[in-house]
Amino acid sequence: MQKVIKGNIIFTKEKDQFEIYKNGYIVVENGKVILVTNELPVIYKDIPVDDMEDQLIIPGFVDLHVHAPQWLNTGIGYSKELIPWLNEYTFPLESAFTNLEFAEEHYKDFIHDLWEVGTTRACIFATRHKPATKLLIKLLKESGLGAYVGKVNMDRNSSPELIETTEQSIAETIELLQEDPSLYGNLTHNTIDINPVLANDLPLVQYILTPRFVPSTTPTLMQALGEIAQKYHLPVQSHLSENRGEVAWVQELHPDIPSFTEVYDFYGLLQPSRTIMAHCIYNTDTEVKLLKRKNIYVAHCPQSNFNLTSGIMPLRKYLDAKISVGLGSDVGGGHVLNMTQHIIASINASKMYYVDHPEYAPLTISEAFYLATKGGGSFFGKVGSFEEGYDFDALVINDNSLQKNGTLSLVERLEKYIYTGSSQNISKRFVRGIELSCEAIKNNRS
Amino acid sequence: MQKVIKGNIIFTKEKDQFEIYKNGYIVVENGKVILVTNELPVIYKDIPVDDMEDQLIIPGFVDLHVHAPQWLNTGIGYSKELIPWLNEYTFPLESAFTNLEFAEEHYKDFIHDLWEVGTTRACIFATRHKPATKLLIKLLKESGLGAYVGKVNMDRNSSPELIETTEQSIAETIELLQEDPSLYGNLTHNTIDINPVLANDLPLVQYILTPRFVPSTTPTLMQALGEIAQKYHLPVQSHLSENRGEVAWVQELHPDIPSFTEVYDFYGLLQPSRTIMAHCIYNTDTEVKLLKRKNIYVAHCPQSNFNLTSGIMPLRKYLDAKISVGLGSDVGGGHVLNMTQHIIASINASKMYYVDHPEYAPLTISEAFYLATKGGGSFFGKVGSFEEGYDFDALVINDNSLQKNGTLSLVERLEKYIYTGSSQNISKRFVRGIELSCEAIKNNRS
Repeated sequence: MQKVIKGNIIFTKEKDQFEIYKNGYIVVENGKVILVTNELPVIYKDIPVDDMEDQLIIPGFVDLHVHAPQWLNTGIGYSKELIPWLNEYTFPLESAFTNLEFAEEHYKDFIHDLWEVGTTRACIFATRHKPATKLLIKLLKESGLGAYVGKVNMDRNSSPELIETTEQSIAETIELLQEDPSLYGNLTHNTIDINPVLANDLPLVQYILTPRFVPSTTPTLMQALGEIAQKYHLPVQSHLSENRGEVAWVQELHPDIPSFTEVYDFYGLLQPSRTIMAHCIYNTDTEVKLLKRKNIYVAHCPQSNFNLTSGIMPLRKYLDAKISVGLGSDVGGGHVLNMTQHIIASINASKMYYVDHPEYAPLTISEAFYLATKGGGSFFGKVGSFEEGYDFDALVINDNSLQKNGTLSLVERLEKYIYTGSSQNISKRFVRGIELSCEAIKNNRS
Repeated sequence: MQKVIKGNIIFTKEKDQFEIYKNGYIVVENGKVILVTNELPVIYKDIPVDDMEDQLIIPGFVDLHVHAPQWLNTGIGYSKELIPWLNEYTFPLESAFTNLEFAEEHYKDFIHDLWEVGTTRACIFATRHKPATKLLIKLLKESGLGAYVGKVNMDRNSSPELIETTEQSIAETIELLQEDPSLYGNLTHNTIDINPVLANDLPLVQYILTPRFVPSTTPTLMQALGEIAQKYHLPVQSHLSENRGEVAWVQELHPDIPSFTEVYDFYGLLQPSRTIMAHCIYNTDTEVKLLKRKNIYVAHCPQSNFNLTSGIMPLRKYLDAKISVGLGSDVGGGHVLNMTQHIIASINASKMYYVDHPEYAPLTISEAFYLATKGGGSFFGKVGSFEEGYDFDALVINDNSLQKNGTLSLVERLEKYIYTGSSQNISKRFVRGIELSCEAIKNNRS
């Protein structure tokens, strides 16, 4: 099925500049972009045009790192750094997800709010509980949003209420996969690497192995997860080098392995092209090279890094090394889901880094926008852009209320939406060509 | 006239801790707080209680540094640093305020939006135009908000459209005062210093001398403004040490004066206890001592300092030196008026400073809240707290929609409002005991 959407189209094919089609057309077929153009070819003239008039049409936002349960706890406890914050705020909250009724109410809110702020794809940490994770997966499938979701694996250094045994952690992970084979497809890494469009043919909700981080997972568990990743061709997500105290702790726990990154690698958790490591603030140059060699994705979470006093990630180093980077809200380390706020935080963090390190240029608005769309989107296949073959994930932005000065360029209008707009400016949200209406998402709510 | 307001009262008498009255009472007489208590004394039992039930009651926010005309330009041009940003974005916009119709429409929006976000007092830069400044003053008086407002003085280094002659700048400033003596009262510095409550008896809108910054004002103009400050007992606001390039430029312009701060002092513009200097990022220890000696207020504007790549102000140094500090949105350098966002930015900036300078502890939530209320409020007299004798400037916060987890303390509820709430959570706004309704503000709009 074909359709044509008309409006002011903006996206980033490359990070260094915006592609702009003023009053342009996007031709979509079976959920995929087949053409973006200023002049609609004659062969499409008979297809009805969905005219967005003067609104902006941009790719949907991709949140490459978010903890669904922690949406409840945003905004509190930020006087703590990572480890005490986990122990005092996060772990007690996550323990409550043994209660499925509580989980359902909360996960419905989370999904609604993700939809509301224009996040069309997300890489999501659930909790360590299998039933609540299954529920989250079910609700995400019903929502129409795209997601990688994983049950958290954690068998050491947590509270008695939250911790699981190694055997239980492995068994429940395998059960989740065997009970729903739609969650992992049957693609090999190679076919995905060679022809990423195949990933777009997977169902929208996929499983991702989710070891919490090295201090929470025993060597036995990490090893087993590495093997599961191989066997089921699964992606992996975890945390890396977020906080100085955490890095020191990992060194204590694994004195025989030279670095935090190499611990993951040793246990088979750096699956090439299919692994996301969040934060990456304190990696050494050797670690950065290893991440590049394995084509590991980095989820940059600047708002969380501010809130938890983690530090400023030297983003430009990663971009210069051509490492794949996306943005993460890291809710509840981050306090909002809205990716526009994480675009701003990424620019601000890079500016503050630049003030002390003038050799690393600050992030431009097109670069930050790229990270929040195509940068993270590429983890999902051809997602986050309006190039040919890309899933049509899009937001329509009505910025009338923001345009007090009638003389703005399209890029300035986008900037103004990012800096001063809100979810109220989003008039439509599409995932794979399907419009996700407010009613559909609300019916999903308690 | 007396009234009693009941609810969950939170404020900061000292910066290091919150004063909390759960289901407490504030007794207000003629706009001033006369008592805050958990148990209402018998003598007040006959006064009807305005019951806010489970809502939070906090002091209104004080924006110690904001440019009214620039509200139009927020969100764009932040790839530039200060001086090119002024030349390319700010000066062309401000030139448009020769048009009074344009100014009226825009200033009405600005005042509405200030009201909407819960800012009850602000120190405002207008433009250099006398008629538009008079209009802004008139509209502010009608609004019921409290403000210091000044026509900008600028007679060098700007565009031909915006610059004024030295004579014109001086003459128009004096005319503004002589045409409306309510703008400056007849208090001497000393009576204000000895008995600050007297400042609370001045009309809510007051004039403040507003030399843009050293590079925009000739020595002759600075000297004249220093004399006007003395003659009319006027406060002063300007910018200081915001950007490294700006600091170097001031040194070039005034090679015979050792520092930026001393330039202002030399020309009589550091009026003791009555001067606000915005930014103060790159001051030397000698300059900090001079600011302390003169009891100069510092307006800390961290969001703007991020946006314009200015740097991180070493706030803890100023607090340790017992310098009076408040927070400024610095719109349009800052992109939102909402002071909760500037509270967050001040905490985040201090956390990032701490990571590299562990001797300077990050700002706590009570400290940041204090800066946004009593810290800046003290420039207006007894404002920004609910202690006896303070003007009853207050916000009532309905945070029902934010309380997804029913187990939060009052301080956590305040934190959650700051981090995740919006102006939609503000149900009432009071200035000097008068509720400012939406209708009243809207009637003021075009």
